[in-house]
Amino acid sequence: MTNKKEITAGIIIIGNEVLSGRTKDINTSTLAIWLNSLGIEVREVRIVPDDETAIIHTVNFLKERFTYIFTTGGIGPTHDDITAQTISKAFDIEYGFHKEAYSILEKYYKPGEFNEGRQKMAKMPITAKLILNPTSGAPGFYVENVFCLPGVPSILQSMIGGLNNILIGGDPILSITINLRTVESEIAKSIMEIQNKNNDIEIGSYPFFKAGNLGVSIVLRSSNKDKLDLCKAEILNMIKSRQIELIKEI
Amino acid sequence: MTNKKEITAGIIIIGNEVLSGRTKDINTSTLAIWLNSLGIEVREVRIVPDDETAIIHTVNFLKERFTYIFTTGGIGPTHDDITAQTISKAFDIEYGFHKEAYSILEKYYKPGEFNEGRQKMAKMPITAKLILNPTSGAPGFYVENVFCLPGVPSILQSMIGGLNNILIGGDPILSITINLRTVESEIAKSIMEIQNKNNDIEIGSYPFFKAGNLGVSIVLRSSNKDKLDLCKAEILNMIKSRQIELIKEI
Repeated sequence: MTNKKEITAGIIIIGNEVLSGRTKDINTSTLAIWLNSLGIEVREVRIVPDDETAIIHTVNFLKERFTYIFTTGGIGPTHDDITAQTISKAFDIEYGFHKEAYSILEKYYKPGEFNEGRQKMAKMPITAKLILNPTSGAPGFYVENVFCLPGVPSILQSMIGGLNNILIGGDPILSITINLRTVESEIAKSIMEIQNKNNDIEIGSYPFFKAGNLGVSIVLRSSNKDKLDLCKAEILNMIKSRQIELIKEI
Repeated sequence: MTNKKEITAGIIIIGNEVLSGRTKDINTSTLAIWLNSLGIEVREVRIVPDDETAIIHTVNFLKERFTYIFTTGGIGPTHDDITAQTISKAFDIEYGFHKEAYSILEKYYKPGEFNEGRQKMAKMPITAKLILNPTSGAPGFYVENVFCLPGVPSILQSMIGGLNNILIGGDPILSITINLRTVESEIAKSIMEIQNKNNDIEIGSYPFFKAGNLGVSIVLRSSNKDKLDLCKAEILNMIKSRQIELIKEI
C-alpha cells in the first residue's frame, strides 16, 4: 500500500507431511515475523508435495515475482528429500558434492560416521552459497534469490539469523494491536471509514475467544510510524466516542 | 501414485494475519485430515493476502486443476472480509443478499441486533449453496467446486461435517507410522530401496526430537490396505535384520 519500493518474499513449504495434515506448518510464522523485522513483506506462501515437477514449477514462477524466495524442507538425507537436486534442475546447475559443505560435514561427524546418507547432505547445486547450521551441521544453501532451509522448525530458527546481513530489506514493518471488548459487526462500519481515510495503513480485524471472553483485535501495520500513530489515535477516539471498552493495547 | 482416478483438493488460506506471521494456520491440517478420511488428497495449499486480484487469480487457477477447492477466511462482517464479493467476481455471479442466508441470520439474532455489519454476512454470490454453521450462525457457501469456509478454526471445524454427504471422495487414504530409535542417515538407503519396490506407497521419513530423544518416524500412506501392510512388513523385517530399535507403532 505504500509508494516506496517494496521488498517482497514468497515462501514455499515443501513436504507431503504438511499436505497430509500430519505436521502443522509453523515455519511460515517464524519466517514472516523475522522478514517483517527486516522490512520484507511476505506476499504468498505455497505448500507443495515432495514432487519434482511441482517444486520446479513453483520455484520458477515465484522467483520472478518476489524479491526473495524461501523454501523449507527436503534437504535431509532420505529418499524423500529432493529439494537440493530439484533446485539444481530449476537453475540448470550441476548437482553434486559442494566442496565447502562436504568439508563442514566431514569435520562435524566423528571419523567413520560420515556415511553415505550424511554425505548426501553435502550434495546440492555445486555453485550454491551456504547457509550455516549451528544446530546440526548440515548447511542450507541459496542460489540467486532462492534460499533453501530445512523443515525442522528449531533448526530453521537457528539458521535464519545468519542471513540478516545478506538480505537487503526495507523499513521494518511495524504493527500495533488494539484489543476491544466488542464484536466485529458493531465496529465494522467505523473501522471501514478509518481504513478508507488511511490508505497507507493495513487494518485487520480479528475476533478472538479467550477464556470464554469475546473480543476483537484491530491490527494496524505499516512501515511509517507517524501514519501508524495517527491511525491509532483515530481508532482510540472512535472507541472512546462509541463507549467501547479497550482491553489491552500492545 | 496409484492408477485409479484420484480425487484431489486445493486449499486457499485467505488472510494478511497468516502472511504476517501473527496467526499460525491450523486449518490446513484440520481440512487435510478430514479430506483424507473421505479419500480426497490435498495437492497444494496457497496462503494469499486479503487482496481481490490475488484471490481471484488463485481461485480461477486452482479450481481447474483440482476436484475441490476450499477457501478459509474473509467471510466475516468487516472491511477486510472480501472473500464473498471476490468469489462472486471470480464466477461472474451477482453479489447480493442471499435469501436463505439472510433468513437464517435474521432468526439467529435477537430483534434489533441484526445490524448492517451482520447483514453483510448474508451477502454472497446470490445463487451459491450454503454451508450451515452450527456454532455462530453465519453460513459458508459454495459455488461449483469452490467451498468457502470461515477462518476461525473452531467454527470451521464445526462446519465441515455438513459437507460429508456433498463431497464425492475416493477410497480413504490410510497411513501407518513406524517410530524408530535411529537417525535418518542410518536408514536412508534401506528405506529408499523399499520405496523403489513399492511405488504405490508414499513413504515419508521425518526426524523427531521428543524429550531429548532422537528418533525417526517412517510414515506409509496409501488407499490400498493390502499393499500398505506388505510394505510395513518389509520395513519391520529391515529394522529387525539391522537391529534398529522399534519405539512405537501407531
